[in-house]
Formats: sequence, structure tokens, C-alpha cells
Amino acid sequence: MIRKYRIGTPIETDSVVEKIKLSSGMVPGWEFDEKKKTLSMRMDADAAVYGLGVQVRGINKRGWHYVSFCADEPHHEEGKTSLYGANNFFVYVPSDKGDQRRFGMYVDTPGRVEFDIGFYNKDMFQVIFDEADAYTYLIEEEDDPDNNGASGILSIVRQFRRIIGRSYIAPRWAFGFGQSRWSYMNEDEVREVADAYDRTGIPLDSIYLDIDYMERYKDFTVSEENFPDFPAFVSEMKNRGLHLVPIIDAGVKIEKGYDVYEEGIAGDHFVKDGKGSPFTAAVWPGRVHFPDFLKEDTRRWFGEKYRRLMDAGIDGFWNDMNEPAIFYSEEHLAEVFEKLDTYKDKNLDIHSFFELQGLIGGLCNREEDYRSFYHEYKGERLRHDRVHNLYGFNMTRAAGEAFERIAPDSRPLLFSRASYIGMHRYAGIWTGDNMSWWSHLLLSIQQLPGLNMCGFLFAGSDIGGFGGDVTEELMIRWVSFGIFTPLFRNHSAMGTRRQELFRFNDTETMRRLVELRYALIPYLYSEYVRAAEQDEMLFRPLSFEYENDPRAAGVEDELFVGRSIMIAPVYTQNARGRYVYLPEEMKLVRFRSFSDYDEEWLSAGDHFLKAEPGEVPVFIRKGCELRLAEPVMRTSELPEYDELDKYVFRG
Amino acid sequence: MIRKYRIGTPIETDSVVEKIKLSSGMVPGWEFDEKKKTLSMRMDADAAVYGLGVQVRGINKRGWHYVSFCADEPHHEEGKTSLYGANNFFVYVPSDKGDQRRFGMYVDTPGRVEFDIGFYNKDMFQVIFDEADAYTYLIEEEDDPDNNGASGILSIVRQFRRIIGRSYIAPRWAFGFGQSRWSYMNEDEVREVADAYDRTGIPLDSIYLDIDYMERYKDFTVSEENFPDFPAFVSEMKNRGLHLVPIIDAGVKIEKGYDVYEEGIAGDHFVKDGKGSPFTAAVWPGRVHFPDFLKEDTRRWFGEKYRRLMDAGIDGFWNDMNEPAIFYSEEHLAEVFEKLDTYKDKNLDIHSFFELQGLIGGLCNREEDYRSFYHEYKGERLRHDRVHNLYGFNMTRAAGEAFERIAPDSRPLLFSRASYIGMHRYAGIWTGDNMSWWSHLLLSIQQLPGLNMCGFLFAGSDIGGFGGDVTEELMIRWVSFGIFTPLFRNHSAMGTRRQELFRFNDTETMRRLVELRYALIPYLYSEYVRAAEQDEMLFRPLSFEYENDPRAAGVEDELFVGRSIMIAPVYTQNARGRYVYLPEEMKLVRFRSFSDYDEEWLSAGDHFLKAEPGEVPVFIRKGCELRLAEPVMRTSELPEYDELDKYVFRG
Repeated sequence: MIRKYRIGTPIETDSVVEKIKLSSGMVPGWEFDEKKKTLSMRMDADAAVYGLGVQVRGINKRGWHYVSFCADEPHHEEGKTSLYGANNFFVYVPSDKGDQRRFGMYVDTPGRVEFDIGFYNKDMFQVIFDEADAYTYLIEEEDDPDNNGASGILSIVRQFRRIIGRSYIAPRWAFGFGQSRWSYMNEDEVREVADAYDRTGIPLDSIYLDIDYMERYKDFTVSEENFPDFPAFVSEMKNRGLHLVPIIDAGVKIEKGYDVYEEGIAGDHFVKDGKGSPFTAAVWPGRVHFPDFLKEDTRRWFGEKYRRLMDAGIDGFWNDMNEPAIFYSEEHLAEVFEKLDTYKDKNLDIHSFFELQGLIGGLCNREEDYRSFYHEYKGERLRHDRVHNLYGFNMTRAAGEAFERIAPDSRPLLFSRASYIGMHRYAGIWTGDNMSWWSHLLLSIQQLPGLNMCGFLFAGSDIGGFGGDVTEELMIRWVSFGIFTPLFRNHSAMGTRRQELFRFNDTETMRRLVELRYALIPYLYSEYVRAAEQDEMLFRPLSFEYENDPRAAGVEDELFVGRSIMIAPVYTQNARGRYVYLPEEMKLVRFRSFSDYDEEWLSAGDHFLKAEPGEVPVFIRKGCELRLAEPVMRTSELPEYDELDKYVFRG
Repeated sequence: MIRKYRIGTPIETDSVVEKIKLSSGMVPGWEFDEKKKTLSMRMDADAAVYGLGVQVRGINKRGWHYVSFCADEPHHEEGKTSLYGANNFFVYVPSDKGDQRRFGMYVDTPGRVEFDIGFYNKDMFQVIFDEADAYTYLIEEEDDPDNNGASGILSIVRQFRRIIGRSYIAPRWAFGFGQSRWSYMNEDEVREVADAYDRTGIPLDSIYLDIDYMERYKDFTVSEENFPDFPAFVSEMKNRGLHLVPIIDAGVKIEKGYDVYEEGIAGDHFVKDGKGSPFTAAVWPGRVHFPDFLKEDTRRWFGEKYRRLMDAGIDGFWNDMNEPAIFYSEEHLAEVFEKLDTYKDKNLDIHSFFELQGLIGGLCNREEDYRSFYHEYKGERLRHDRVHNLYGFNMTRAAGEAFERIAPDSRPLLFSRASYIGMHRYAGIWTGDNMSWWSHLLLSIQQLPGLNMCGFLFAGSDIGGFGGDVTEELMIRWVSFGIFTPLFRNHSAMGTRRQELFRFNDTETMRRLVELRYALIPYLYSEYVRAAEQDEMLFRPLSFEYENDPRAAGVEDELFVGRSIMIAPVYTQNARGRYVYLPEEMKLVRFRSFSDYDEEWLSAGDHFLKAEPGEVPVFIRKGCELRLAEPVMRTSELPEYDELDKYVFRG
């Protein structure tokens, strides 16, 4: 049962594809304070809140505040409030003590909105708008006998997913292992990576090209110096069974003669500043203009550009910097330099010193810059901040819509950093620039249910962590979790310790783990496709499956993956195991490789589970089964799930 | 059994007070590579390493690298390598499988030294020197029948503690609750805090004065505007049973007519730049000189200044910014401004932009600044970086030595931010500028054993977190842990959410928790004094007490506190309990207040322990007892431990 309500004059976002009749009045159960632009509701003392896509903190979002305003935020500390996505769907689950009922709510507004879920006052839920213009969708449980046995929370999620349209389905090869680095600088570096993986026998399906493959960071160019014959190189890799996946950035370099820039100017495709000229900011290429992806013909124009790389044989892309990230705006930088002059003349006191630090530190992703340019959207001129959260969505939609024209019969890989609900129909996401921290391994586990709820099924974190230096133990544990996520990609930043799996001492363990991944792919991919087609969640917390078990509600580090298995990853340093809670009896299979494991039935309740680095505990649900393939070096060599009969684990 | 070895030409640090004969040759069990200035040792696959004082990551330090170079580092993320202290003592504990033996090692060198404990290579321990000049002390187990039943690790620690001298003993009132803020700006704000605590019935013993009590951040001054009659105000507070504890910074403001500055110049007390003039840097007061605390007569001069505040009735201090923190050096700032001019003229490309950001971001605590000034130390002129880690130690020693002269019969409170072993004889420490993060609550638990090993028994973290915004639940959990730490102080930064306990909704729970602290003080203080006098640890991980229990070695979140009790704090959001491992049967007392609790015997093994916010589980060891006092509003009203007989809990 879904009802739709209106607050103010909402901007249409295209996130909901089903037509839903507008109900009159305010969304029931919430109070709206017009002056404070705030919806509020008292929470039951034991209520939990789930959802919100890619965000900080735990699976249960209660106890913090979250700001939906897509942010280029590489410091995913628990004190932050925004990450890359803005995904405003949540489910509220009260305890059974009070008289509140479970419900889902989607706050469809493309501007900034804050969800204070017991931060300011531990028992209050507040939705605080920048501009109180939104559609809110209230989703209540359906008393649907044909519910496939799914519980209330899952039925709420399924109803929501139904109205936002079917999730993007990635190709099976995208479930293969991907190796990335900012950046492999030329053909030889890419070849060396491919060779080393083949030499160590670690399966691999893709190598990612970060920004340096381009000619001076110009979208849809390839450096001729470093990749002198790109189509031939793509084809060489393809012949080895390897896909190259280039990055595409949101900003278009301002450069006379660069065709994308020239076409953008000629076609009036760029966002405008207050005076109507193309807005200028700086990102990787230096000064850029941003395409106005909110315009349909700009999407069509930009989308067509992917064809160049697809013509060269490319069949996968990642869209980046599309919050959009802004290193600085030209106008503000000039102001800062003027201000700097005044510091120089006077004796810098401590107050001015902090001001100076703030000026320079505050150049990037500055709120005022986001208020200084304009879109044309559905016939209106709108200031960017009002539609900020649609930007990455529509960049990626541009690509997704183009793929339907360019390659209607194939399934290209596409994922994005920024997101808004609706984008899930076109692409997956990765969780952005995390760090090589144990706490970020846990975060990457905890982010999956919220993403799945919002339709993002193809998702994953940078395995091993993007920033900072990984250790071998952290990498082993991260890979041991990552083998279950659709996107399974090792990525790291310039200047950090090299972390390709073949660079560690214990490549034997790395190989066994990636082999186990390949053995799992038939199961994972079929469950993934099914989840997309049936509007279900691939990753589900225990509380979604055992709603009446209060202990299940407190479990923040175990996930069901598909219908048959549950995982309990180890995410602490020097651990030799971890605690696990089983809501019911399950079969434990402790894998050291696809063919080396021990099995044991564990009773419902609490267990300390031994799991040395390199050991992967998998729990098989009673009455379910997990079939593994024999591992291969490329996904293309894998059979389908229902062809498997050799390695069958029964719960 | 302690042996002392020499590498190069060590600088004496005064950290070891017992005379130990020098053994010839290199420390056995380690290889020394002269070219790499590195000591290295292969670690047993299951070996653990403990110690290193205030550092990031877990109790077992294996799996990361740590740099001893006292740092003003408010971002205590797991990717950092240095915090405020440099405490180079550790214990190595191999598994019983190999042929290695347990030992302790103290690397006594006042310059930068890195401990790579399985970071670069998971099985190698490397001690990497900046300058390979050090004494190393190798401490092996004593086969001492008179060991008081203590285990091997503890006997190693005790031997080490014996040679570094008895730990500072804080007054009992310092175990009372302390309320701090950067800053209470004037008398009225302090009074309001005192009034609000008294009104809500939450016990309190001290209120801290952060930098704004001073006249423009000048050490040993008090703002006449904000504290017009300071001695009268101190006395007013003392009459209410409250101690005021002012902060003292390392840098002395450069200001004509300011007597401390003038005396420092006249007495030649400041560190010198390369040309022999006083080195100028900026900290809170703007431009400052740093006293050369490494000189005995400078220590005597600076120490005498505390007398002014003591004459006004002050009996407690915290020494801050003594790494020393440097916001910028005058010389380098001039260079940066010159460089900025060159950016302005050219069109700033992305490369120059990052350079600009780095220039400004890198002004603070810059390594090159630490290489640009000089000390006079034991008759030598030494560049600062070579003795960096002695600076905070000797600032605090200046105060401690002065107190022995000024108040020989009393026990003033003194603690410091920077530390080096040796300072533990003069003062305690607080763990510096943490954040209001759940992960920092865990960190504050994990830092205690390492601190205790190095002699720092009077220690604690900023309860609720210094930076960032705390939530009520995090504060309740942090207080629930903090009631066991000697320093029990709520402190937070300017600009963050106010976090005095009376500001939350549930002041009733806050009151019960602080009351429980006061009920515990007789136990805690007597165990603390005993630990100091007997060279023991107040906080001990399970692995120190149950060396032959491999499960105990993996427990990173349970601590013995004194001889009778073990604690297992809850440190995750929305938790209703946690797992606990008991190496042997223990009595659980789950306190809701000193007089409201339930008791239960728990068997050895794993348990899921229910603990709602506001519930404090305490485990009493078999055959031990815990006696509680009836809570009072001030520590002065508390009886001694052996006078207690009403609330007795027996294990």
C-alpha cells in the first residue's frame, strides 16, 4: 500500500516510474513545521531505521544525522554526514511494544535534506528540508498472501522497488575480479598486471583505467603516447579474456579545438553561471565546464560520446566526479587570492591564520559554488543546489540511455560514484574513496543493505581500501568479504602502497580466495539477477528475515547473500575468529578454498567462530543449498548455476 | 633480568633511574643493519606485541607501524602512526609453538623511531631509527618464586617499571568527576556549570579552565576582565568543594613587558634558531618562543611560575601543546607567502593548486620546523628533532620538580599531553584531542594497557570526545566506561555540541553513573596507589592474566581494573549488549546504580551480555571482593576503602 503526498512545489526527479495518485494532506504520522521546514515523528525507544543508501555508520541508522547532498568525501569517518549518494528511502521499524506500525518512506526531493534519526534528540526523527518541496511516499505492509513468505520489512522494500523500476543488471563478467589503480599509466603497466595475475594463477576478468589513460584528463580521449593503438590494445586484452574499464569524469576540459568542448559550447550543453555564461570550475583537467545532464538533449549528446570507446571495443565504464566534485571555482579562487594579499601586508595573527587555512581548505566542494550555477530542467531554469542530487544520476542515465541505442543487445558494465534513486535503473555504484582501514571494511559490509533497499544491487567497495596503506592481513580479510559482493574490485590511490594481490607474500591464499569467488559466481549471479527481476534484496540483515527476534535486530555484521547463505566476515586486526549469532540452526562451511573446507551444523544462538586469515565461513540455511563451480581463470569459462552438480552444500 | 645495550652514541634521557651495567655487543635476538639503521627480528606467526603507550589501533600492536615522534594529532584515525606520546617500551609474546621466549624491550632514544610490527612484512618486527643512537634494554622473565603469583608478562612489566622509577600519584580528589570545555570564558560560566551539576545532583570535583582563562593566552596570567579576582574565585569554588584546574601551554607569548617573556629573554631560557636568536613560531598567543625545558635552570625558572597560580589556591594543572605543537614558524610562513605570489601571477593549474593546498595544509607541525631550532642539553647543543620526544616530558618535569619545592607536603594534580617515559614520575596524561566517535571510545579502552606498561597510571580520555558532536547514547556509554579510569573528565572543543552531563535529556542516568563512580573511588584509588607503589598495572588485558589461554590473547575489549574486577564496556551504537569472554568463572554484577543491580555467576567461556544504556556490567573475580561507598557529591566526603562494609560484592 503506497500513498503519495506533496509538500510545497516539488521538482520532478524521474526516480519513481509508476504513476501514483496524490493523496491530500500531510503524510500521516508526521508533523510538519512549515517554518522549520521539518517533518518530525517521535520514535519508539527500541525502533530501528534502515536505508539511506551509501552512508556512514551502521545498518541501523538510528543515533546519527545524515545529509543527502552528494559529496566528494574521501574521509568516511563516523563524524561525517554526507557521502557520495543521496538515497532518501528508509524503513522505520518500531518495537512491538508500542502502537506504531512499520512503514517505508521515500522523500523525493533533489535538493539538500537532512535525516536526523535520534541525533539531536534520541527519540525524535526529523526530516529537515533546505527547501520544503518534496513528494513523500508512504509505504505500508501489504497483507498479501502471495508474499513468497517474505516478511513485512521485505514486503515494504519490494513495494518501493516496484515503483522505482527494475534495477540495472550488470553482465556476468562484471562479477569477475577487477584490478584497478590510480593509475596504470600505459599499455605496459596494464600488461604487467595481466601477466602477473596469470602467472600467479589468480583469476581476473577486468583491469580498470583511471584518469591517466586520457589525454590530459579529457573525456573520451585516449593518450596516444601511452596507448598508441588503443583499439588494438583493447582487442589484445579481450583475446586474453580481459575487459578494460575506463573512467569517465563529469567535467569537460576547456580547451580550444577539443571537440567535446567545442561541441558543448556550440550545442549550448553546459551549465551556466549567474550571467548566463558557461560556469567554470576546476577538476582534474584544470578548468572545465559541466554538461547540463539534466537536459535531455545534453544527455543524448554526451551519451553518444561513449560510442567512441565502445567502437574501440570497450564494454564497461565507471562514471566519476559526478556529485559534481569541484576543486575550486574560478571566481572564488580569484577572491581568495585577493584576500591572501591582505594577509601578506599585515602581521598574520592567529585568527587570520585560521581564516587563511579555512580559505584554502574550503576551496573544494564549496557550498556557495553549488549555489552559483544553473540548469535547464524540464523547461525551468533551476539553481544547481536545488537539483544537486540529480547530477550524477543524469550523467549516468546519459550513458545508460546511450547504451540502449548503441548496444541494445549487449549488457555493458556501468557504475557511478554519485547516485540518486532512479539511477539504479541504469547502473550500479561503488562506495567511493574509502581508506585502507579495518573500520572501512566493516562500513563496506554495513552499507550494502541500505544500497539494496534503494535499488542499487550492483555495488561494492574498493577492496583493500583506496587511500592509505593496506596490510596483507587487512587485504586477506577484505577479499574474504569482497568475494560475495557483485562489484569485486581492488582499487587504490596514487602514493599508497601497491596492493595488487600478486604483490603480497601469501599469493597462495589470495589465489584460493579469488578462486572461491569464481566458484561462487554462478550462485551469486543467478541470485543477483533474480533479486533485480523480483525487486528483492541480495544482501539482507538478520533483522529483515527474523523480525520477531530481538537479538537479530542488534546484529550489524552478518548478512544474508541471496536465498541460501549467510556470511559473517571477520573485520578486526589480529583476529582468529569472531562471534556470530544464528537466529536458527544453520550449516557452517568453513572454506579454505573451494575444495578444502570443513562442515558442521551449528545450533541457533551465539557462537565464537574460528576463522583464521584465509578461512571463509559461510552459513547455509536449513533446507537450502549452495552449489559451487570449479574455479576458472575467466568468468567466460564458468557454467550456469543449474549446470552445477559437483560441489553441492546442503543446509 | 635486565640487560642494557648501546647502539651508536645515545643521548641520555633520564627516563631510567636505576643504574644498569652496559652489556657488550648488540641486543640478542635482533639483527642490526647499520646502513638502514634498523633492528629487526622475525616474529612467530602467532606472536603478539603489547605496549607503546598512547597510540592508535588495538591492545595487540601487531599489524601496523608506529612512529614515536610526539605529534599534535587530533585525527586519531587508524591510518595515523603518531599520537601525542613517544613511549618506546613493548613486550613481545610469541606463541608456545616456536622456540622464542617472551621479553620486554625499551628503546631509549629521544628522536624519531619507527616500530614496524608486521606492517611492511607481516612476520617482521623492525625498529627503524632516524639516528641510530639508543640504549636498548632487554627484559626477560625472572624465575622469581616471590612473584606474587603474577604471570610472566606482568613480571617483565614490573621489572621495567622498577628501573624507570615510581609512577606519579595523583591526589584522591583527581579521581572525582571533572568538567571541562574549551573554554569556560569567565567566572559566571564556571559558576553556571557548578550550579547545574549541584542542581541535578551529579557529583563533581573539578572544573577545568582551558586557554581562554588567560590574558591573551599568556602562560601564568589570568584575564582580569573575565576573572577579576581570581584568588577569591578559586576560594569560592574551593568552599563548594570544587577544584579549578587551569591549562598551561608550552609557548611563551612574545610581548614587550610580559614578565615571563622578558625574564625568558633575560635569562636566556628560549630555544634558539640556527643563528642563535630565540626561535619564533606561532601557537595560540600568536608569536611565541619555546622555553628550553631541557636545561635544568630553565626548568627551575619555568616551574617557579606555577607558584603564582598555586598562591591563588590552584592545586592542579594540565600541560598542553608540549609536543611542542607549532601552528607555523615565522620563517616558513614568509616563504609560503612568497610562493603564493608566484601562483597569483600565473593561471593556476591543477598541479599548482594541489601544491598550494599542501603549502597551507602543511604549515602546522612541520618536520622541517622541528629541524630548525636547538636546545642546550647536558652541555651539548642539540638540534630539536634529535631530542624532540623529551620536550613535553621536561616541561612537565619542570612543574613536577617545582611542586616538590612549592608544596612538598601536598599532592597537586598534574597531567600532560605529550609524554616520554620518565615523565610518568611527575605526572599523568590524557589521551589528547579525540573525537566524539564510537571508535574512539574503543580506542580509549585499548590505550590503557600500553600506558600502564610505560608507567602512566593516571590516565584517561576526553569523555564524550573532544572534537565533533556527541550523542546522548555515546555519552552514556563513554561515561559507563570512564567511571573506571583514574582521570574521569568530560571535555569538548569550541564549536561542538555542548556536552556537560546536565544538558542531556536523561540526567537521571548520568547522575546514577557518576554516583557509581564515586561509589567506586575508594576501590579504584586504593588499587591505583598500590599499582604505583608496587610497579603494577591498574588496567590489564586478559592476555596478561591468562597467558596460556589462546582465546584470552584475542580479547581486545575487556580489561581487569585493579585486582578484583574485570570490565567489558559497550562501545557500539544501538547496542543492547555485547559479547564477553570469561577465562574462568566470574560473578557478574550488572549495575544500574550503586544500589540497583542484579548479580549472577557466569561460567568460563563466551556469553552474550545484556547491557542497556545506563547498565554497567562488572565482573568480580572468584575469591575477590569489591566494596562500594555510598555516593557523595565530592570526593572529600568519601571514606577509605577499608572503612567500607555496607555494599560488598563477593566473587
